[in-house]
Amino acid sequence: MADDVSTPSPTVHDAEARTVAAATAIPAHIVQHKGHGHAGTAMALAPVAHVLWQRVLQHDPADPDWQGRDRVVLSAGHASLLLYVQLVLTGYDLRLDELPLSRSLGSRTPGHPERGHTPGVEASTGPLGRGPPTAVGLALAARRDEALHGAGTGLFDPTIWVVAGDGCLQEGVASEAASLAGTLGLDDLVVLWDDNRITIDGSTGLAFAEDVRARHRAYGWDVLDVDDPTDLDALESTLRTARERTGRPTLVALRTTIGAPSTTVGGTSAAHAGGFGDDGLAQVLTTLGFAADATLDDLVPDAVREHGLRTAARGARLHDEWDAAFRRWRDGHPAEAAARDALLAGAEGADPAAVDAALAAVPVDDGAATRTTSGRALVALREAARLWGGSADLSSSTNVAVPGEAVRADHPGGDFVHFGIREHAMTAALSGIALHGLWRPYGSTYLAFSDYSRPATRLAALMGLPTIAVHTHDSVAVGEDGPTHQPVEQVASLRTVPGLDVVRPADAREVVAAWRRLATRPAHPAVLALSRQALPDLAGGAATVDGTARGGYVLRQTGDGLGLALVATGSEVHVADAVARTLAAEGVAVRVVSMPCLEWFEGQDAAWRDSVLPPTLRARVTVEAGSTQPWGRYAGLDGATVGIDDFGESGAGPDLLRLRGVDEESVLAAAREVLARS
Amino acid sequence: MADDVSTPSPTVHDAEARTVAAATAIPAHIVQHKGHGHAGTAMALAPVAHVLWQRVLQHDPADPDWQGRDRVVLSAGHASLLLYVQLVLTGYDLRLDELPLSRSLGSRTPGHPERGHTPGVEASTGPLGRGPPTAVGLALAARRDEALHGAGTGLFDPTIWVVAGDGCLQEGVASEAASLAGTLGLDDLVVLWDDNRITIDGSTGLAFAEDVRARHRAYGWDVLDVDDPTDLDALESTLRTARERTGRPTLVALRTTIGAPSTTVGGTSAAHAGGFGDDGLAQVLTTLGFAADATLDDLVPDAVREHGLRTAARGARLHDEWDAAFRRWRDGHPAEAAARDALLAGAEGADPAAVDAALAAVPVDDGAATRTTSGRALVALREAARLWGGSADLSSSTNVAVPGEAVRADHPGGDFVHFGIREHAMTAALSGIALHGLWRPYGSTYLAFSDYSRPATRLAALMGLPTIAVHTHDSVAVGEDGPTHQPVEQVASLRTVPGLDVVRPADAREVVAAWRRLATRPAHPAVLALSRQALPDLAGGAATVDGTARGGYVLRQTGDGLGLALVATGSEVHVADAVARTLAAEGVAVRVVSMPCLEWFEGQDAAWRDSVLPPTLRARVTVEAGSTQPWGRYAGLDGATVGIDDFGESGAGPDLLRLRGVDEESVLAAAREVLARS
Repeated sequence: MADDVSTPSPTVHDAEARTVAAATAIPAHIVQHKGHGHAGTAMALAPVAHVLWQRVLQHDPADPDWQGRDRVVLSAGHASLLLYVQLVLTGYDLRLDELPLSRSLGSRTPGHPERGHTPGVEASTGPLGRGPPTAVGLALAARRDEALHGAGTGLFDPTIWVVAGDGCLQEGVASEAASLAGTLGLDDLVVLWDDNRITIDGSTGLAFAEDVRARHRAYGWDVLDVDDPTDLDALESTLRTARERTGRPTLVALRTTIGAPSTTVGGTSAAHAGGFGDDGLAQVLTTLGFAADATLDDLVPDAVREHGLRTAARGARLHDEWDAAFRRWRDGHPAEAAARDALLAGAEGADPAAVDAALAAVPVDDGAATRTTSGRALVALREAARLWGGSADLSSSTNVAVPGEAVRADHPGGDFVHFGIREHAMTAALSGIALHGLWRPYGSTYLAFSDYSRPATRLAALMGLPTIAVHTHDSVAVGEDGPTHQPVEQVASLRTVPGLDVVRPADAREVVAAWRRLATRPAHPAVLALSRQALPDLAGGAATVDGTARGGYVLRQTGDGLGLALVATGSEVHVADAVARTLAAEGVAVRVVSMPCLEWFEGQDAAWRDSVLPPTLRARVTVEAGSTQPWGRYAGLDGATVGIDDFGESGAGPDLLRLRGVDEESVLAAAREVLARS
Repeated sequence: MADDVSTPSPTVHDAEARTVAAATAIPAHIVQHKGHGHAGTAMALAPVAHVLWQRVLQHDPADPDWQGRDRVVLSAGHASLLLYVQLVLTGYDLRLDELPLSRSLGSRTPGHPERGHTPGVEASTGPLGRGPPTAVGLALAARRDEALHGAGTGLFDPTIWVVAGDGCLQEGVASEAASLAGTLGLDDLVVLWDDNRITIDGSTGLAFAEDVRARHRAYGWDVLDVDDPTDLDALESTLRTARERTGRPTLVALRTTIGAPSTTVGGTSAAHAGGFGDDGLAQVLTTLGFAADATLDDLVPDAVREHGLRTAARGARLHDEWDAAFRRWRDGHPAEAAARDALLAGAEGADPAAVDAALAAVPVDDGAATRTTSGRALVALREAARLWGGSADLSSSTNVAVPGEAVRADHPGGDFVHFGIREHAMTAALSGIALHGLWRPYGSTYLAFSDYSRPATRLAALMGLPTIAVHTHDSVAVGEDGPTHQPVEQVASLRTVPGLDVVRPADAREVVAAWRRLATRPAHPAVLALSRQALPDLAGGAATVDGTARGGYVLRQTGDGLGLALVATGSEVHVADAVARTLAAEGVAVRVVSMPCLEWFEGQDAAWRDSVLPPTLRARVTVEAGSTQPWGRYAGLDGATVGIDDFGESGAGPDLLRLRGVDEESVLAAAREVLARS
């Protein structure tokens, strides 16, 4: 979009200088009075944030959800005051008097930015390095939106900005993101690097002597330098250059001094956290032209507030222009507009009838590996459920390859993203795609390698983003590749992540039912744990469709009464089923409970849960080829948990399952023992 | 060490050509006959491995543990046959007839190399990207060994070689390692990069278009190119250049063709896994000069075996020379030799008396934060327990800073490693330091960020390496920094990792007792979960010292009989203790069980476990400010688990604990409920 802010008049110039001074002073003021928090980076970057939010950014403070807006991801999340100050000054729905509440329970200004808490915060950040890959996801989605719908208007391809510190660029996940962004030519991506040469432990020279600029050029990035970020006009010019579409992402290296203009702690790691002391604050304030005892309100006089209103007005104008262009596009491109509307409308969940129609052709009784059925469901559901994603290599093994063409630098509208062997950046990028809002993102790798992506999985759960991780090769049954490739603890450990649904279907029917729930009820991030090996059809019928969506159900009840419950997931349900038949032949009443998703099951009301597992039924054996940790609460002190609490070995899967005690013989023995003492 | 292998005679040349042909053919033969496995990379790199193991490497096949040996880490672990073939051909204790057993249960040739299974395998590998950081740890340790003991002899600073593929270099952890290696000038490190431009999904161009060479130069590495790895003399010359000590690590870029000389699948991703078909194998064999139906034994005629013996003889000679130099060094440097001997001898565990003496001065009754006491214990124990390590920034917060100087490129003997904000590479490097054998490595970051390092933690556990992770800020009590910095699920999820000890001490006494056990019994990797906040002294006395080492013990018993058990860890033990006093005043017999390490407790015999938690005592409440998943097996169906199964919030720690129901009031309510129904 065009953006023709005129050269400010001298009066405006003065107001602008006072605005930048205020933005610099406020973090020091807040942190000193509060006694904790992070001021140094928010101060040093205040001029940069000012130029970005008040001169360059395409945003409308009155409408933080405007589809045409640029996005800013504050990768250096501890500098949350940098962001909050700009939101206050430019007219977002956030007041100056909310800043002193920062880091307090219930405030809209948490210690690190949190999506959903504060208008204008695009993503939750804090753990370092996560901004760039999240932004890669946003950029991938925006470029695809533009390619599929925009018809060259540029309406849907705003600029994605990242504010990152040295710590962010030391994290491997940021390197993965930068390499991918270079490969895919994400020229809507700009990373503003706060090159302050300081980390908490001291000079970056202690651990970070590389040439960051040369490294990014090697990735295929443009690199721009800003030696004096306080020269606002030069900075604006650089940021405008940075967002030009050159075919390459851009790194803007900003030479800053943490905590400037503090003469006591500026340029040292002491400026990272905590107040500067009363004298230190007074020095900062007087240097910036304020009284030594200025109140927070004193820092923001009317001239500063009025200057901020210029930004609000600028935003309204940009928004109006965009709206007009958007209407012209709609009129000229009804098919694209309808397709895009449908994508937006689908965010609340796919239409159940459309999902059922799409899934109808997927075989559910052929005894396929669950990864195979999942791949079929994914291809079938792609349109109805707005699925878009890719794989960290291995797409042919994880069965997520889809018909069509891959995303390339010259084909941003592609059907599939080759994320490369970068599980962590992939998973963070899925969050970015979800934040964009048009598509339901998925990514895949082997379950054992979900460990790489765990930090990003956690952040998706914290944000409540409905990403889907397709994790195949889900137990020691993987076999010959050995213990490094055999997940043992991953299902259990993923279940400990709050707000993450971990789904381990037992057969093709459960896979299809699981995808059905995922497609129609996109509330949380989800992990699908799928088998490499073929699994028999359990012939569960309609009970399976409903029961899978409920997370747990009675697959089979043999005999009358409550003799024993066998509770299992995934590839162990058919083992439990076989044991039940053996025991039934001996006259024992056994119920086989399939529990593909503990989170879904535990979200049911007590009536359902108790109908599946009556509290009085204490003879219980759980079976899952992995860590038994989650099962103690189901087995209780009178039951038994059959599982694997040790690493696997290299060898044939069935032999290994037998060796580790997850086979019919072992389950039967456990069942007999439990029955004997009950 | 000097290495003056003379130019081979023509006969030797012929034998060498046949040896390389055999090394190339064997993987294709094995995989085709077995029906699974990975031949392509092992074939392509066969000439490289040949030159490395048979011409350049400082090793002695008769003594895989020789202290003076070079180390090779096969980062591309799926190419295990590459390594196994060289071990067979050069005379390690591995026979040709063990290769067809590869990937079979109980074989010494697992699918991916596993330390402890095969003589000559230095590290377990498989998940991509992990070789470089492990090698960084080996290189850091070797350089320190040389700096502290070697007196310029070069005796203790062999070359650390890594064989890595494109996939390894795409992983962020390898980028972290490369940046750190450049910063610290690890010139004993050489990464051989198999630049074959193929991953499982196809051409690396799909996802990896960066300039890898320029990137490594930006890190401060030397880069050498090998355009034709089949030119053995040129390759040898390059590898010898690569290991020269230039102040910089070296990347050797090897232009290879996966699966060469296969004309059917060579150069394609189809060569990555699986056999080439009968015809495909026949073509490979005949191209290499063998009969189309050659047996495995046919591939290794006497001439090849004899050529391999040359390497064995060369190794014996290098070893003899080293031994002589080592003896001269010992005679000339008795103090250094004694110090070094003591380090080696300490690998089995520190002397308990020395540990007690070292820990005697650490205050245990001052109510300090457990991170504070841990820091004191670490400093006190450094010498007695051979501790050496560092931090991923944050050393002043995690209390792992030690007196002395940091490791720098020009000071390899430093006391502390600034790993940078690279939790994953740090943790993998700890494994490298442990593999080196002289020091007990530790590393630190906040517990919430342990997620970054989880893949490396897992591999340390699989290898059984006694690394120590100091993870502070161990619950939502972290407070104001908010949910991204508040671990909720990490303690539970780390407990799911087989062979990992997770220790969460309740007060200073338990911290000291935990360090005592860690120092004296280095069996497994361990995680210390430590509080940011001060914790009251529980005054447990001698019971705490013994009980902590046992992982769980009765801290307090009020009244007679078995009324209720309150089982807690870390910062929740004093909460349980307070609740016990309240209930005791009401006449309820309560036992407070402190359980700092479930793994240690569950390693005790049944008598101890039952004495702490009698099976008949069913009224149980567990308390831990985190995921309740681990506690179901203790609480049973009649007890209650007090914990936090949701993310935290930004706010004061005590307020947040109250809000999330982990305070005296909530625990008391849970206890009353359990008592009421028991």
